[in-house]
Amino acid sequence: MRDFSQDHRWLSINTATVRKSRGRDLPLPDILDACVRRGIRAVSPWRDQVHAAGLEQVSKVVKANGLELSGYCRGGMFTATDDAGLRAADDDNRRAVDEARELNAACLVLVVGALPGALAGKAAHKDLALSRQQVHDGIGRLLEYSRAAGMPLAIEPLHPMYAADRACVNTMEHALDICDALDPSRSGALGVAVDVYHVWWDPQLQAQIARAGRERLLALHVCDWLTPTRHLLEDRGMMGDGVIDIRRIRGWVEAQGFGGYSEVEIFSSPDWWQRDAGETLDTCIARHRSAV
Amino acid sequence: MRDFSQDHRWLSINTATVRKSRGRDLPLPDILDACVRRGIRAVSPWRDQVHAAGLEQVSKVVKANGLELSGYCRGGMFTATDDAGLRAADDDNRRAVDEARELNAACLVLVVGALPGALAGKAAHKDLALSRQQVHDGIGRLLEYSRAAGMPLAIEPLHPMYAADRACVNTMEHALDICDALDPSRSGALGVAVDVYHVWWDPQLQAQIARAGRERLLALHVCDWLTPTRHLLEDRGMMGDGVIDIRRIRGWVEAQGFGGYSEVEIFSSPDWWQRDAGETLDTCIARHRSAV
Repeated sequence: MRDFSQDHRWLSINTATVRKSRGRDLPLPDILDACVRRGIRAVSPWRDQVHAAGLEQVSKVVKANGLELSGYCRGGMFTATDDAGLRAADDDNRRAVDEARELNAACLVLVVGALPGALAGKAAHKDLALSRQQVHDGIGRLLEYSRAAGMPLAIEPLHPMYAADRACVNTMEHALDICDALDPSRSGALGVAVDVYHVWWDPQLQAQIARAGRERLLALHVCDWLTPTRHLLEDRGMMGDGVIDIRRIRGWVEAQGFGGYSEVEIFSSPDWWQRDAGETLDTCIARHRSAV
Repeated sequence: MRDFSQDHRWLSINTATVRKSRGRDLPLPDILDACVRRGIRAVSPWRDQVHAAGLEQVSKVVKANGLELSGYCRGGMFTATDDAGLRAADDDNRRAVDEARELNAACLVLVVGALPGALAGKAAHKDLALSRQQVHDGIGRLLEYSRAAGMPLAIEPLHPMYAADRACVNTMEHALDICDALDPSRSGALGVAVDVYHVWWDPQLQAQIARAGRERLLALHVCDWLTPTRHLLEDRGMMGDGVIDIRRIRGWVEAQGFGGYSEVEIFSSPDWWQRDAGETLDTCIARHRSAV
């Protein structure tokens, strides 16, 4: 198992973590600059941040600084109520693959979607099995395109508390069942993103990480689970502030041969967004050493 | 599958649902009286409500009105940091069995506990596997006592969002693994409580309900998952207001031969507690017909 206590060479920053600084939007180029100045070698930007800054401009900054992308965040949202909706998702996902390729990302992370309309507060139906079938089929269609483009797809199982509105793939087992069905040869074109926040509770976690193996372990995301958790979306914790035994899980992942970045994704945290982004990044570096 | 649309004979009320009326505590005898007046035949009271009213008094009211208990709520909380803590939990759980027996409950529901201290905001450790072992062992010890007393134990898998602080058994599969280990003969002394709120998201749900079979399906709890869910504990929805396909799940449970009550447990809902308990109970009756 790699020793993270001496440096932060394997730290990646998901750029949503510092989307805001002192409560104000921080443009992606400024985020990248702040990372580079701290010797952070990798990031995982969100699409909307890339679009706001311009793909070409972001690509230029990334290449000029030798930054790596531990992932591109994100494709998915495959579910819909009609064929037009499914086709629109397909089109958007192919564009996400193209962008990920331009940025030379390690993988495109997929948040697969759930009951159509639920995220806006009104689910169109309650048929979770139907949504899961649409997700399966949608990944299958995208895989033809992404495989040709040489861009691995990483299914991210989301915590079961997001099953209604964000992702109806909620366990490693389910994600790997999809991988086995669509990519039985374990080609490397399809795998999973292991975010400890989403999967730490799963009694099958160690076994499913072993089942995934090196070919299917495409990304490792870290943050922490706070007690109490005050909000379903906006209360992710900094590594070390919660109850997840992050190092143990990283050990399981590395035992399979994973040697990539550990990506800090403190998604949508008003607490951290109120602070200075520099302070947040410095804390990520310190906690990456002490708690990851 | 039973037709619930014509009457509410299979409705049970978990008394936490109407713990308050118009924001004020409602004593258990008043709750029982309000249920009886509406022709509700079964309840599942919480221990603290029983203790406040006095076990003997509650037992008298229950028997005088021919009320049934779909369950007794609750035993569990098996985890601790030392032997004294484990023994205290054992003692308390044996008392819960005695009370459940006095009230002639169908089962004692077990919320098994998780990381010691986490519920108070400060977990003593992060070793979820250790907590799970303590839960396994604690249920094993209690089972000797409850079996002799003739009181079935129902392990209630709680939603994974409670894995840190309330229950580290979070899937039907895990609960049934414990049942198979401790009661391999499927004697009826140990089983599960299926609360749709906790398990609706699980891709293994239908298969695990079938695995449980009639001997292990001891209780069915219903409410709904709201989108958005605004609070991890205090935002359970009334049946029909959310996204759970409750009738489909009830169908899976009944296909195994389950013919017991469907128990409404809208645990800890400030919204419903602000209303008049009579309105809440009338709504439970109506929704039990239309959405369960």
